[in-house]
Amino acid sequence: MARHLLLLTLSLWLSCCSSYKYETYFFKQKVDHFSFADQDSFIQRYLISDRHWDHRGGPIFFYAGNEGDITLFAENTGFMWDIAPEFNALVIFAEHRYYGISLPYGNKSFTEPKYSGYLTSEQALADYVELLAYLKTVIRGAKNSPVIVFGGSYGGMLAAWFRIKYPHIVQGAIAASAPILQFTGLTPCEKFGQLVTADFAKESKECAEVIRKSWAAIDAVTADDSGLAWLTKEWKLCKPLKGKDDVKTLKAYLMDVWTNLAMVDYPYPSDFLAPLPAYPIKEVCSQLTNPGHGPKLLLEELFSGLTVYVNFTGETKCVNIDQQADVRLDDQGWDFQACTEMVMPFCYDGVNDFFEPADWNFEEYAENCHQKWGVYPRPMMAPKIYGGKELSAASNIVFSNGNLDPWSTGGVLWNVSDSVVSVIIPEGAHHLDLRGSNPNDPESVIDARRVEKEFIKTWINEYRSAHNLIGNDIKNTNTFEVEEPHL
Amino acid sequence: MARHLLLLTLSLWLSCCSSYKYETYFFKQKVDHFSFADQDSFIQRYLISDRHWDHRGGPIFFYAGNEGDITLFAENTGFMWDIAPEFNALVIFAEHRYYGISLPYGNKSFTEPKYSGYLTSEQALADYVELLAYLKTVIRGAKNSPVIVFGGSYGGMLAAWFRIKYPHIVQGAIAASAPILQFTGLTPCEKFGQLVTADFAKESKECAEVIRKSWAAIDAVTADDSGLAWLTKEWKLCKPLKGKDDVKTLKAYLMDVWTNLAMVDYPYPSDFLAPLPAYPIKEVCSQLTNPGHGPKLLLEELFSGLTVYVNFTGETKCVNIDQQADVRLDDQGWDFQACTEMVMPFCYDGVNDFFEPADWNFEEYAENCHQKWGVYPRPMMAPKIYGGKELSAASNIVFSNGNLDPWSTGGVLWNVSDSVVSVIIPEGAHHLDLRGSNPNDPESVIDARRVEKEFIKTWINEYRSAHNLIGNDIKNTNTFEVEEPHL
Repeated sequence: MARHLLLLTLSLWLSCCSSYKYETYFFKQKVDHFSFADQDSFIQRYLISDRHWDHRGGPIFFYAGNEGDITLFAENTGFMWDIAPEFNALVIFAEHRYYGISLPYGNKSFTEPKYSGYLTSEQALADYVELLAYLKTVIRGAKNSPVIVFGGSYGGMLAAWFRIKYPHIVQGAIAASAPILQFTGLTPCEKFGQLVTADFAKESKECAEVIRKSWAAIDAVTADDSGLAWLTKEWKLCKPLKGKDDVKTLKAYLMDVWTNLAMVDYPYPSDFLAPLPAYPIKEVCSQLTNPGHGPKLLLEELFSGLTVYVNFTGETKCVNIDQQADVRLDDQGWDFQACTEMVMPFCYDGVNDFFEPADWNFEEYAENCHQKWGVYPRPMMAPKIYGGKELSAASNIVFSNGNLDPWSTGGVLWNVSDSVVSVIIPEGAHHLDLRGSNPNDPESVIDARRVEKEFIKTWINEYRSAHNLIGNDIKNTNTFEVEEPHL
Repeated sequence: MARHLLLLTLSLWLSCCSSYKYETYFFKQKVDHFSFADQDSFIQRYLISDRHWDHRGGPIFFYAGNEGDITLFAENTGFMWDIAPEFNALVIFAEHRYYGISLPYGNKSFTEPKYSGYLTSEQALADYVELLAYLKTVIRGAKNSPVIVFGGSYGGMLAAWFRIKYPHIVQGAIAASAPILQFTGLTPCEKFGQLVTADFAKESKECAEVIRKSWAAIDAVTADDSGLAWLTKEWKLCKPLKGKDDVKTLKAYLMDVWTNLAMVDYPYPSDFLAPLPAYPIKEVCSQLTNPGHGPKLLLEELFSGLTVYVNFTGETKCVNIDQQADVRLDDQGWDFQACTEMVMPFCYDGVNDFFEPADWNFEEYAENCHQKWGVYPRPMMAPKIYGGKELSAASNIVFSNGNLDPWSTGGVLWNVSDSVVSVIIPEGAHHLDLRGSNPNDPESVIDARRVEKEFIKTWINEYRSAHNLIGNDIKNTNTFEVEEPHL
């Protein structure tokens, strides 16, 4: 049962070398915000840019860091940088605990539950609460600044939950491609794989069919040693296939490749893991045309398609299937989260999707997690704490989703209210709207960003109006005193 | 610096022996709902009555247990019992962790932070979330029941916060005498003592003046051994006063007595710690008439007033000043909470109040807490997590406050919105509205209860209407699956 990393696509434009200017700072956080048993502290990294900021109470654009090094998110969330000048906004990117260099227990952080156990979304959000409360006291002019939180993927979930749980801290949330419903009982487990499949079938039925038939073809070809050797050579694998375990690894790798292609099917060249052309699925499918081929011919053809992903530049010497498709993210942290709170059921039937049939087996999953991490998953923790589909009391959230993005199947795709709205980007892959503006952007993502900007303006104006903001003065707000540093 | 217990007044009518029928159950809870480091569990007690319940989706009335044995709250929250038949409601009282018999680590629970540290309001609320999610799956007909949460004092704070943080779990909150603003920077520390004083001064200026002068009189009289002996005898103290420490204890006891009288100044006889007459402050003040007396005469007169509190029945043999005024509550638990999250600043100047002047000294307070409990307080934890005064995103809460109740100074006394409203009970002491109906109830508390009932009806109807409740069927709600018992 493959589990997908819920990842932010770290593509950089091939055409240029976008890089944003910011300062790096560190903040002392409590390891446990909700109890007093563990009184340890750790150092959280955050990035800040006041280049365009209006020091007289301009808004704060806050990125809720997700499962990776925060500098990667800063580099790949061009939308915030693009619109900061127009809003005179202070830009902050906060690193999620247990990722990047914000490791609460250093290199012991993942060794046992007493160290790893504080890696939860609730603790991460509380970090952001503390950080913002602190920054508003120490940054001149920030005390009364409205805060808009942004996030993509798991970061989008955090953004939405941040507004839901702490509406006194953040005035609105742009939650891009946030699958907050990708939990047990909320979204059927088969939907995700079906949308991956549809992205390929949209190009051609034959394309999807070649992939669907490839699993049996792999089994047939790798049934004996000569077949294993043949496939190793034909697909230029870095390490020779030696038996069933390697074949399983190969299949998991392929699942990730097809899934990742569906996520990053952007309309312009991008650099995710390997460089990719514009509309990479179209490129892949242009190679996959003959589902009627026998096993070896079919796998040769499949490799032509695979090459688009693994060797677009022609510089790849061999294909490393032991390397996950998202090496720039911290797999360790996400694996722990998937084994505790972020339990996202996936299943495949091979009929309505092109994957190998695989049920969602929670018991097996849970035991596997317990063996790996010493903890049992709590599959209903997030829905119970955050509310699942029950969003009627929420306000000021834009849930944006791209119709190409398989994660949209776990997204909020309806308007909950006037201020909790769904923005659909028909041509959009995974949080395309959070990426920087690009000449090849489809009209729909330009529209989406326009809508998002309008909501941000509304939230800022409502906040200022509700708090009688006159100049840089706000009445009726809390004054958080700076706490004694008893950490 | 005396610290007041934020307590539910456990008065029972003298005239009868009100007792409500319920069943006692137990539920296995996680010690830590927000992290995976501590995977222990404990047994929480809860009480339940389905006597008046409509099994076809009738509402659930849920009492958010506060700092004491839950049976005492069940016995002393007559309002819920009184209106349950009219609403066909299921009545549940949940015991707060670390109180009553719901001790996560048995008799080790308060021995060190690794055991005591999970006593926080956030964990307690998460207990209630888990309990309700569980009960809705196992009680026939409860799956789609709207939940109304009730609470008084700290329980009222929990009720309000429950709705604020978990609006998908509870549809509305009756937060009686809930001082959610009694935190650093939100309410001036002197307000509380000023209102206690005003309750006495309202009866007569002389009354308040006698108390104001009593502190110096005590100092003067107890300056030598013969004075200590005289006061011991005159006031019938159980243990002889032996020096300054005992005098300090005596003064703290008196502070609690005057404060408690202000809280329980009910319009009918009640039994709090000692039995009290109706309008006990009026009775006390009828004795305190001569502030011009010299020290000994003044203290003799003061004792006449004190007698109303300590010996209304005439059966008290001696006055035990080592015994707190609220022995039925679990002081240990609340002392820990006051030393961690529930840091409520109080101060007195002796001019605008009748207490001995005493500044709020957080540093001293914090060091004292660290010595006692091995933890430092986090005074801004609750305001940061729950929002303090910033309630604009909240909905469906009635904040009721009595003008006689000193805790009202930390309450929400304004209408935040159409659905977050303040109900003022001019003649009300501490959460009088939550008590059972009484022939001597003033009109204002009858009105308050009527308003509360109207809001409860509205919340229930809105919930049913929003969820397309037809008969006993609700669409668009989450179905929480029962989790594997991996506790």
